[in-house]
Amino acid sequence: MRWHPFVVMLLGLGGAAMTARSDEGMWLLNDPPRQHLKDKYQFELTDAWLRNAMLASVRLNSGGSGGFVSPEGLLVTNHHVAADSIQKLSKPGEDLLRDGFCARTRDQELKCPDLEINVLQEILDVTKEVNAAVRPGMSPAEAFAARRAVMSTIEQKSLKATGLRSDVVTLYNGGAYHLYRYKKYTDVRLVFAPERAIASFGGDVDNFEYPRMNLDVAFLRAYEHGQPAKTPHYFRWSETGPAEGELVFVTGHPGTTQRLETLARLKHRRDYTLPYTLARIRTLEAALHQYSQQSPENARQAATDLHSVANARKAFSGQLQGLLDPQILEQKRQQEEEFRKRVVEYAKATGSPPPDFEGTFGRIEKIQHLLREFEKPYYLFETGHAFFSPLFNIARHCVRMADELPKKSAERLREYRDSHLDSLKFQLYSPAPLFPELERAKLTASLTFLAEMLGGEHPLVQKVLAGKNPAARAQELVSGTKLFDPAERRRLVEGGKDAINASRDPMIRLAQAIDAEARQLRSRYENDVEEPERQAYATLAEWRFQVYGQSVAPDATFTLRLAFGTVRGYEVDGTKLPFHTTFADAFEKSAKLNGQEPFALPRRWLEGQSQLDLKTPFNFVSTADTIGGNSGSPVLNRAGELVGVNFDRNRHGLVRNFVYTDVQARHIAVHSQAVLEALRKLYPEAAALFAELTRK
Amino acid sequence: MRWHPFVVMLLGLGGAAMTARSDEGMWLLNDPPRQHLKDKYQFELTDAWLRNAMLASVRLNSGGSGGFVSPEGLLVTNHHVAADSIQKLSKPGEDLLRDGFCARTRDQELKCPDLEINVLQEILDVTKEVNAAVRPGMSPAEAFAARRAVMSTIEQKSLKATGLRSDVVTLYNGGAYHLYRYKKYTDVRLVFAPERAIASFGGDVDNFEYPRMNLDVAFLRAYEHGQPAKTPHYFRWSETGPAEGELVFVTGHPGTTQRLETLARLKHRRDYTLPYTLARIRTLEAALHQYSQQSPENARQAATDLHSVANARKAFSGQLQGLLDPQILEQKRQQEEEFRKRVVEYAKATGSPPPDFEGTFGRIEKIQHLLREFEKPYYLFETGHAFFSPLFNIARHCVRMADELPKKSAERLREYRDSHLDSLKFQLYSPAPLFPELERAKLTASLTFLAEMLGGEHPLVQKVLAGKNPAARAQELVSGTKLFDPAERRRLVEGGKDAINASRDPMIRLAQAIDAEARQLRSRYENDVEEPERQAYATLAEWRFQVYGQSVAPDATFTLRLAFGTVRGYEVDGTKLPFHTTFADAFEKSAKLNGQEPFALPRRWLEGQSQLDLKTPFNFVSTADTIGGNSGSPVLNRAGELVGVNFDRNRHGLVRNFVYTDVQARHIAVHSQAVLEALRKLYPEAAALFAELTRK
Repeated sequence: MRWHPFVVMLLGLGGAAMTARSDEGMWLLNDPPRQHLKDKYQFELTDAWLRNAMLASVRLNSGGSGGFVSPEGLLVTNHHVAADSIQKLSKPGEDLLRDGFCARTRDQELKCPDLEINVLQEILDVTKEVNAAVRPGMSPAEAFAARRAVMSTIEQKSLKATGLRSDVVTLYNGGAYHLYRYKKYTDVRLVFAPERAIASFGGDVDNFEYPRMNLDVAFLRAYEHGQPAKTPHYFRWSETGPAEGELVFVTGHPGTTQRLETLARLKHRRDYTLPYTLARIRTLEAALHQYSQQSPENARQAATDLHSVANARKAFSGQLQGLLDPQILEQKRQQEEEFRKRVVEYAKATGSPPPDFEGTFGRIEKIQHLLREFEKPYYLFETGHAFFSPLFNIARHCVRMADELPKKSAERLREYRDSHLDSLKFQLYSPAPLFPELERAKLTASLTFLAEMLGGEHPLVQKVLAGKNPAARAQELVSGTKLFDPAERRRLVEGGKDAINASRDPMIRLAQAIDAEARQLRSRYENDVEEPERQAYATLAEWRFQVYGQSVAPDATFTLRLAFGTVRGYEVDGTKLPFHTTFADAFEKSAKLNGQEPFALPRRWLEGQSQLDLKTPFNFVSTADTIGGNSGSPVLNRAGELVGVNFDRNRHGLVRNFVYTDVQARHIAVHSQAVLEALRKLYPEAAALFAELTRK
Repeated sequence: MRWHPFVVMLLGLGGAAMTARSDEGMWLLNDPPRQHLKDKYQFELTDAWLRNAMLASVRLNSGGSGGFVSPEGLLVTNHHVAADSIQKLSKPGEDLLRDGFCARTRDQELKCPDLEINVLQEILDVTKEVNAAVRPGMSPAEAFAARRAVMSTIEQKSLKATGLRSDVVTLYNGGAYHLYRYKKYTDVRLVFAPERAIASFGGDVDNFEYPRMNLDVAFLRAYEHGQPAKTPHYFRWSETGPAEGELVFVTGHPGTTQRLETLARLKHRRDYTLPYTLARIRTLEAALHQYSQQSPENARQAATDLHSVANARKAFSGQLQGLLDPQILEQKRQQEEEFRKRVVEYAKATGSPPPDFEGTFGRIEKIQHLLREFEKPYYLFETGHAFFSPLFNIARHCVRMADELPKKSAERLREYRDSHLDSLKFQLYSPAPLFPELERAKLTASLTFLAEMLGGEHPLVQKVLAGKNPAARAQELVSGTKLFDPAERRRLVEGGKDAINASRDPMIRLAQAIDAEARQLRSRYENDVEEPERQAYATLAEWRFQVYGQSVAPDATFTLRLAFGTVRGYEVDGTKLPFHTTFADAFEKSAKLNGQEPFALPRRWLEGQSQLDLKTPFNFVSTADTIGGNSGSPVLNRAGELVGVNFDRNRHGLVRNFVYTDVQARHIAVHSQAVLEALRKLYPEAAALFAELTRK
């Protein structure tokens, strides 16, 4: 952490409003809190430690984190992160998600149909280059286009030069731009997954709760050229795990936080975005729930979708409770006030002109008023919330690629830039099965939600429904489309505009019919919201550097971060919760709840109970700063060994989107001992895996 | 049915747009479709038949229908209608809803804590009297007050004169007013309930579906003066049930339909009311679902709430699909156009002044624009959607009774009129248990929904939340209130205004804090919506009588109606569905779905399978016109014998709120044979019940 002279002065005066002494922060790996770790924990964060952590940490494109745990490409993540792949690997009549999977030998490892993993190799600061492209006097639309173009060019150059996946990442909501270079693997195979009943023991009921007893791990292996990848940077699997009070680190890819957003933006979230989001998610959840109940096969098909919406409902509900908590809003208000005061003081101290609060805070507030007017249609049509089915996403990509690919890379919509095309096509041509009845149920729900949001008279609603009610329209779209077949997708993409125009596929026709309006909403969002907000936040970031130095980590961006904290229990309503649970707790809880769903233990566990050391630590908590996207993150000790696999936060941690707190908020991880004990005693077929993990 | 000369002329010209030849109609018992039944079915509806049907039909205040089936007060209804009582009768550690109940002897029959049943004795037309109270030139507010006062006076006089519960019912949305006199019973006891697994086999999954195999019946007994009530008018239980193609009747209390509403009103429902309603219901469903999953005891506590919201979600979803179906809207539009044409023709033919469409259709349309502005706050605060807990309802009644009871009966809010007070207090002082954690979960969900709907800055939201977030506020309200105790409720009601003002009960304080605003919203609704709509609909009703005679039944009003139809299967996607299912179908379906919830059969059924005649008809369908509230309705044959107990509609019937259709729409009933066969073979402890049903 670099300390700016001005903030050191303030700290010296005892005036630090920031939580510089707490365990807050999802830190950039090129700007880690070295001094803080030294001061508070007497820990010397070495370059070697950091480099190993970076090269052994993994991002999964299904939306989670993981880490290499052997030099032969073996990696651990959460069962719930790998679930999407595990589900897609189940053949008709089998249910690997429910029953688990184990490859006894490498040739039994199963190739995931569309899983890509990324391993960060290098970070370069390109802020100056990006900002230089935006010249004074440019309109927001021009500025947005210029920025998009320069980012695409930087990425493309980097890809050419290094062969590495290259992404420019926007940090501090526009305060900085860094180029991230990743090694990527698209041949990733399933090695081991436990039964879902133990991986997510307690299911959605216990999601975001603690005490927990989940074996939420799965093992995958990265391959290159048909061989296990060489991964000399990996985390050694600790046989002891963490002790109470121990310093631990979490490396992973936190998705998004909103800690640096202004109060006006947070209120907009509270009153507009979150209510809309929750209404949408509850609609999908009810539909998926109803679909699942109809038969075990339906339940199998809908499992990952249902888990993800139930999870999202809880997470967003927690966020909303946070923003509806007057104390939290007051805390944000005070922070903002304090920040403004500091900025004024700094300007005075340095003889700079007085800060333009109207052009920053005021501007962001005005943007929220604009956003209200079109946020719902923007999400419904451009983000695609009205069409909750991969079939629509596929159709849209086919339609848009026909329009975008003929353009120069720098001028395309960002997701179609050259440097990203391979990853996109890898997804698009995925042979993973889609289930017509499930897609019909999802589309019916989301088309109905569209009509609920905008009303039956809205011209775009009428265009989408095409003279039918949502249920009949969904039926028509799903039964008429050929996009279930990856070959048809490829044919359309390769056939370009002619193929699209000639297609009578109803899903393609739908995507095309609304494309002009969707693009218009996107431009409006980019020009009226994204770009002006970015400019305002860039100024705020500048001021923040001036008055607080870099003692504030940027908001999460689903890029690699380093968090740290202490392994420590907490208290709820007078009850002390221990820093870890044990195997015994799982058996007790299951017995207490009559072993009923979702507290049924797998037969293997019930029958093997007597062989287990029931005192084995199962899950543990620490104060480290995590958020969604950190699922599957390695938890490391000072020696850089893997002592746990993060898989959840408790409900007290749900407000961490907006504020860090460590009074009760904790992340929850699977204890490294639990994995070894379970593998050794209950999964004899995983002997090779066990040996690979424990090999010295 | 009385035919108006003008409509006979039109029919003679082949110009009938109405469905006069179909089985549409929930008919008033004082205006039944005699001629139609004679013409179409050669059935002579005698006064004696009608009178017996009226005096043997029962309304339950929990929101359903039933019928006497013995001269000793025995009545049948649906298990799901009696569920509320069954649940309340379960003592800690038992679950009568799940496990069923049987009183072997009368002294084992269990008194329901707060069930009131009503039996209609007489109907009087008081339209003239009610309308005479509203004088020309009155403002809507004055008109509303005058109408409320005269209705209250009529009821009070009737109660005094007859001792019967007396309700003035508004028909045709204000086209007519009838006085309904009921005999009421407040000592109603549970005689028999089967296990929930067979009563609602298929649970929410199969709700609104067919084929069905549900033993959705429960038997209660009305008592008077501690003795079984004498009920000489009852339905004989048919041992054969209905044949295919047979004419059947349904007597019962359909809740609400919107068939006579104007197109503008229906569009308002589609675009405002239903989306709001569905968002609310999904919120509650998600919260109740989460609560239920936490333990078997939680599931037991939340069972009836969860069933009712899941049921409502499906019903309202079906309504919304109906209103989003352009064909249905077009049908309504054509009906309205046709109606207008007829009215113009009638005016010309009779030399009347041209009809004032602007003051009727146009006025109703304008009212919808007004309604949009305050419909959500009206529902949230006055209907009480923001406070989804009986604890709030209790608090509100306590607070309002302190204000209302000192006034003259005719000037009070309608629910506090003298003639209604006994029924209200019977509910209010119910000793049925309430569960703090369940109420907390429900309040958290509904307070959150309030904030989502109106935003965190809304002054009333801030008043309600009182400086806390919804979860913390719900906790504070539930842990602080003493209203769990019926004695405390009585103390507050009897203590009047002083007791209320002195109370520090947080729920009382909340109800009082928002009462002025809630009343204001109510007045606004009454004066800006209810009264002007009533006046406009009264004119429409007059016109309708003029041009169609009384060939159109009024919309449902949860009062006794007579429907009729044909027992007949139907076709879906080329598959013919039979007019009845059998016991064998239940065993087959359960086996096919591995006997998993909600398709698990009770042990008694699995073990007794071999004793059953598996060909026994289980459920059947007919075209008769039903809607929610008809649950538990007796289904009768020409002889007036009970051949079935209605319990559901299929999903094709969900649009019947707006239009009648018999192509696929059916109501579903338990076959009378199924009940006898099950009782005889599987429930030996119900021998006395069986004997009572089959006694000649």
